Amino acid sequence: MTQSSGAPTADPDQDPVYTQAVTELLGAIAYGELTAFERLTEDAKLAPTLEDKVAFMSMAAAEFGHLTTLLERLRELGADPYATMRIFKKGFDEFHAHTRPADWYEGLIKAYVGDGLAADFYREIAAYLDPVTRDAVIESLVDVGYAELVVDRVRAGIRADPRMGGRLALWGRRLMGEALTQAQRVAGERDALSALLAGGVDRPGLDLAALGRMFARLTENHARRMSDLGLDS
Amino acid sequence: MTQSSGAPTADPDQDPVYTQAVTELLGAIAYGELTAFERLTEDAKLAPTLEDKVAFMSMAAAEFGHLTTLLERLRELGADPYATMRIFKKGFDEFHAHTRPADWYEGLIKAYVGDGLAADFYREIAAYLDPVTRDAVIESLVDVGYAELVVDRVRAGIRADPRMGGRLALWGRRLMGEALTQAQRVAGERDALSALLAGGVDRPGLDLAALGRMFARLTENHARRMSDLGLDS
Repeated sequence: MTQSSGAPTADPDQDPVYTQAVTELLGAIAYGELTAFERLTEDAKLAPTLEDKVAFMSMAAAEFGHLTTLLERLRELGADPYATMRIFKKGFDEFHAHTRPADWYEGLIKAYVGDGLAADFYREIAAYLDPVTRDAVIESLVDVGYAELVVDRVRAGIRADPRMGGRLALWGRRLMGEALTQAQRVAGERDALSALLAGGVDRPGLDLAALGRMFARLTENHARRMSDLGLDS
Repeated sequence: MTQSSGAPTADPDQDPVYTQAVTELLGAIAYGELTAFERLTEDAKLAPTLEDKVAFMSMAAAEFGHLTTLLERLRELGADPYATMRIFKKGFDEFHAHTRPADWYEGLIKAYVGDGLAADFYREIAAYLDPVTRDAVIESLVDVGYAELVVDRVRAGIRADPRMGGRLALWGRRLMGEALTQAQRVAGERDALSALLAGGVDRPGLDLAALGRMFARLTENHARRMSDLGLDS
């Protein structure tokens, strides 16, 4: 791996702090994909039809494909993929424990809104990564195809039972709140990850104003997704 | 599709009974793969380590790949894959309801012994199919790779707690009994499927002696798998 001028490198000999940060980031995304797989298979079990069940299994299988790419990249970086994922187990497991869907619709919304938010966040961070890692991250975030299915099913559900809209709108807000809580906790605990966002002498980073703009973009995208579902954000 | 002399064809215009039988067979295998996917994701949840969890997810994803191949072939035959799968829902769901693993080890054995038995059975039947369908069936039965993992984990478990061996041997017998019960019930209900095995004027089939030999082969393979696990059959 050669160091291109100005751009960060993923070579551990060159910048151990950067490599540590990248390793942790990939570990977080990987563990997130793993839990997404588990959640999609749970959703599949609740599916009212065999067709929707197979659709959700298909998404889970696609998430697993993303996970393997990330584990591969972690191995290339010389990291133990499983040890790295374990760092983030507590945060994700708590998020999922606090946001257990009560029914098929809450599961659909969690898949759409939760994964959308996570993907937006990782894509923002990817801008600060070396090209190889950036590609691995971007590739792992390719939409596994549920957006259209979720929007269709949720809208049909609300048409059939309009009272459901209020409950599901509250559910979307709770998902956003829990995700931010866990993300802040993780950022506070992982110095290397925070340093990645803050930048360094030879690496661009986010100042407070840029962080604010990033947060605004995440919130806007969340609101757009809720609106696609026919829900207030 | 042209009809080769002597060999059965999957063209519905040529032999509607044969096509019906093939459609049902593929539907049964497909629904079986679907439940295998669900069961493997349940096993993944019980996995004691993140490494084993990912290994089981990987098998589930591979089973899903097989399922898609079968759904594709059903569509080519002009069948509704979901309606065809639904025919076998009750049989498989009952089998799974009667053989719910109590722990990680029972789950492992069910995956290994149950799928092994099903694969042997379908491979026997595949000999009586047209080449295109036969290939689709054989391809869908490719071992998704758990044999080695299951044998290793079960043997290690019995070494750590030898009393477990007796319980797990009983469990293996129960799986075999339930599988035969459901298979007989399905065969009794589906005339076209039974006719496929019995053969026809222009198609070779199984006489009673051949059926007996097939059953003996299935039992032998089951005993070999139990012995690989270090269990009496």
